[in-house]
Amino acid sequence: MKNIYLIGIGLIGGSFAIDLRRKYPKAVLHGISRKDETLQKACDLNLIDQKATLDDLKNADLVVVSIPVDATVKLLPSILDKIAETTLVIDAGSTKEAICKVVENHPRRRNFLACHPIAGTENSGPTAAIPNLYVGKTNIICEVEKTTFKLQEKALEIFSELGMRIRYMDAKSHDKHIAYVSHLSHISSFMLGKTVLEKEKNERDIFDMAGSGFTSTVRLAKSSPAMWTPIFEQNKENVIETLEEYINNLEHFKKLMQQDNFSEIFSEMENANYIKQILNGIK
Amino acid sequence: MKNIYLIGIGLIGGSFAIDLRRKYPKAVLHGISRKDETLQKACDLNLIDQKATLDDLKNADLVVVSIPVDATVKLLPSILDKIAETTLVIDAGSTKEAICKVVENHPRRRNFLACHPIAGTENSGPTAAIPNLYVGKTNIICEVEKTTFKLQEKALEIFSELGMRIRYMDAKSHDKHIAYVSHLSHISSFMLGKTVLEKEKNERDIFDMAGSGFTSTVRLAKSSPAMWTPIFEQNKENVIETLEEYINNLEHFKKLMQQDNFSEIFSEMENANYIKQILNGIK
Repeated sequence: MKNIYLIGIGLIGGSFAIDLRRKYPKAVLHGISRKDETLQKACDLNLIDQKATLDDLKNADLVVVSIPVDATVKLLPSILDKIAETTLVIDAGSTKEAICKVVENHPRRRNFLACHPIAGTENSGPTAAIPNLYVGKTNIICEVEKTTFKLQEKALEIFSELGMRIRYMDAKSHDKHIAYVSHLSHISSFMLGKTVLEKEKNERDIFDMAGSGFTSTVRLAKSSPAMWTPIFEQNKENVIETLEEYINNLEHFKKLMQQDNFSEIFSEMENANYIKQILNGIK
Repeated sequence: MKNIYLIGIGLIGGSFAIDLRRKYPKAVLHGISRKDETLQKACDLNLIDQKATLDDLKNADLVVVSIPVDATVKLLPSILDKIAETTLVIDAGSTKEAICKVVENHPRRRNFLACHPIAGTENSGPTAAIPNLYVGKTNIICEVEKTTFKLQEKALEIFSELGMRIRYMDAKSHDKHIAYVSHLSHISSFMLGKTVLEKEKNERDIFDMAGSGFTSTVRLAKSSPAMWTPIFEQNKENVIETLEEYINNLEHFKKLMQQDNFSEIFSEMENANYIKQILNGIK
């Protein structure tokens, strides 16, 4: 690989850049961003070698698209318009159905591989980029059969170099399940942050009382609204469904408390403890 | 200090034992527990030197009570019945009103200092005990004026040795605020665990899709039901209030999604981002 183009150089794109540079030391890393400020920052941090524009994509061996999912839906067709026949384009979006849909009939559809690396932190922007973010993480690939075989192979080699595990899934199932194990967690955390901030806004020093449990539960409330708003929009139906089930479970818990049914509350928590076994499988 | 008695030797009591042994190497550590199995484990782990019973408390210089809060309410009066005039008794319960109330007229009330060290993990039992758990953590002391001055001084010296910061608060305020910054987080996490487990029970491998965000948000769902049921019971009114506000905020978020009002969803998240500034102050 000679020319790698990163569209979006925040936490996700920047962390790709760090590891790709190490694994492919001869490649030139080109950055593309809406904001020159971000591009300049990425240069300063040595994440990329050169600034570029979409018109340069004809020279790309690999294009990594890691921008908010609404921007991906808008931009992906014109990215595919501009690449060469041998270019591999991958994305990293948290939704897959809308993204796959927008290019389903594109003449270069077979150059695109729809991906969702389950990796990240609550931080964003080029300064949030870290080495080894993808080591040991799962990369969900959707509609693999729609990508040309040679470019599948090329992608798998890259993911293997970065240390990722691969899982295949259809886009619809991806969006349904990810609503539970990722999107809902973000809403529960954002709203927990809101609830506590509203209540305690006049008593700032009350936060002295908050311990590591609160910090952990509310961590995702630090996430970027620019990234998360379009995710919720694109996965609206699934997210609303998970949210309804979550609210019902909270209502049930409240009702048990109001009824002084603490033996049932005990059972509720005991059952939820089963999550231990499952978390043991997650790094 | 010659004789330290630990009533309850799980995560909290056991971690006290580890650090007290290091800071007071001449003291003998006595353990008291409902279950001999726990006591034996604490001996095997070298957390305590000797097994003891409540009748031995007359020899105690310090008694540390770290058992579920319902057990504390039941046991604390008889603990105070058995101690000597110079014994200091501290607790570590997550609720303070019921505990203070049950001993308010006890002749040895002035030997008791009501404490809540904001420290812990989601694990429990003697094997969960770790060194330095209390270093840099806040210890909330309630109704300090009801404890005899000499024993206040003694307690402060111990907490200082263990590296804790002290905050004073009345028991009612403690219970109200801790409902927001601790008890609600646990419910949000338990119910998140429940929601995801219910949905995904037939598709175990879907948890491959869960990343560090889910792990962090659901971590508290691993907590002990035996510890948490009586906390929710004793702090019922405050907890129901926080739960109602949390559910209202989630309902509002859902409504905004149903109305496709994503600019307002963006604002909601942006406002919750303010939690960043606050978390920076929490270790």
